[in-house]
Amino acid sequence: MKKLEVCFTPALLHLYDLTGSVVVVIDIFRATSSITYGIDNGAKAIIPVATVEECIAYKDHGHLLGAERNGEVVDGFDFGNSPFSYSKEKVEGKTLVLTTTNGTHAINESKGADEIVIGSFLNLNAVCHYLVKQDKNVFLLCSGWKGKVNLEDTLFAGAVVHQLKFHFDTWCDASVLAEDLYLMAKDDLHEYMKKSSHSERLKKLGIEKDIEFCLNLNLIDSVPVIKDGMIVKG
Amino acid sequence: MKKLEVCFTPALLHLYDLTGSVVVVIDIFRATSSITYGIDNGAKAIIPVATVEECIAYKDHGHLLGAERNGEVVDGFDFGNSPFSYSKEKVEGKTLVLTTTNGTHAINESKGADEIVIGSFLNLNAVCHYLVKQDKNVFLLCSGWKGKVNLEDTLFAGAVVHQLKFHFDTWCDASVLAEDLYLMAKDDLHEYMKKSSHSERLKKLGIEKDIEFCLNLNLIDSVPVIKDGMIVKG
Repeated sequence: MKKLEVCFTPALLHLYDLTGSVVVVIDIFRATSSITYGIDNGAKAIIPVATVEECIAYKDHGHLLGAERNGEVVDGFDFGNSPFSYSKEKVEGKTLVLTTTNGTHAINESKGADEIVIGSFLNLNAVCHYLVKQDKNVFLLCSGWKGKVNLEDTLFAGAVVHQLKFHFDTWCDASVLAEDLYLMAKDDLHEYMKKSSHSERLKKLGIEKDIEFCLNLNLIDSVPVIKDGMIVKG
Repeated sequence: MKKLEVCFTPALLHLYDLTGSVVVVIDIFRATSSITYGIDNGAKAIIPVATVEECIAYKDHGHLLGAERNGEVVDGFDFGNSPFSYSKEKVEGKTLVLTTTNGTHAINESKGADEIVIGSFLNLNAVCHYLVKQDKNVFLLCSGWKGKVNLEDTLFAGAVVHQLKFHFDTWCDASVLAEDLYLMAKDDLHEYMKKSSHSERLKKLGIEKDIEFCLNLNLIDSVPVIKDGMIVKG
């Protein structure tokens, strides 16, 4: 039986060996939710980059450039990681270049993996089906907040553990913890997330609608994957 | 209001500033439970050291030398971190030198703190009372398992958060997560711990009695503290 592990933050990645694994990168508020939405809305590709400078370097390529730091759109950019910037009319047929505080960092840190896919509540079931089909070890990588653990990414990891625990060996404490947290919260994720420090920070930024959107389950049936350094429909 | 933070493993310590804080080091199975028990049983001091070699260097000092790695007593040592090696008849009036896989490592990593104290379920209430009196920021440091998160240390952190949340600002996601896990498990900690990967490992080592002992609440009314590099009664 293949194994499934949960890692609460990229700051713990050095403790794991990703060789041969599928990594699911999770940044619920908001990078991986928005990427999932954008790819499903017909974006040709999203190029995740680590720094704002790398993003700017693409300015003559005719791509859409997005940058977020500390929850806000970086000065000089048209959009950051709000899902509403990834609607069909905005992204269809386009290539986007994106850098965010946590999500694109986690993607870039996962390069030792066999495969990297993008997970969010929006495509929870699709991700789970995809993982079962791959027949590889699975590594759920929460992006966290600047290296620290966060609730929303842990909850999503728990949702995946809950769906897949009879398909994989999930015998690690982080999986147990994530699943139990999810079971506690699942009947009203939105209410539960009011406890989150991150949710409070996002509220101050006036983006409650983003939060609400990112907590929708299974609006989307596709799984973004990384190919040649770009995120495309899987 | 002073703040209380939870850190799930020493591998995340670099993200925090311990200056001016009281750190509570937590290694429920079994180092901090055994230290709590040993100090309460009259051990004069316990010297925590990082390596087996450092421990051996004390061999001509007339101290008791303990060493544990991977849950087992290191070859050539009389005891490791089983609480039953820390009974009154064994440790009263003695100085012990101890190295363990996770707990003494976490102690040594906390040296930037204003104060380091030792927490376990055995002295939960005593630790909480002590922390309230100090009027400093509190940092609950779970020792984890080789850098990874574990259930039992997280549960204890959650128990402290639950008792102290009206005395401290506990607004970090790790605190929320730990408290909710504790609330889910508290009615039968022993039953809940059967889910733990670590508990399974300890069972293979034939030390279920140690586990049972370490999950007793409030047998002990004292708090071990670090003074001049040695653990003594606070």
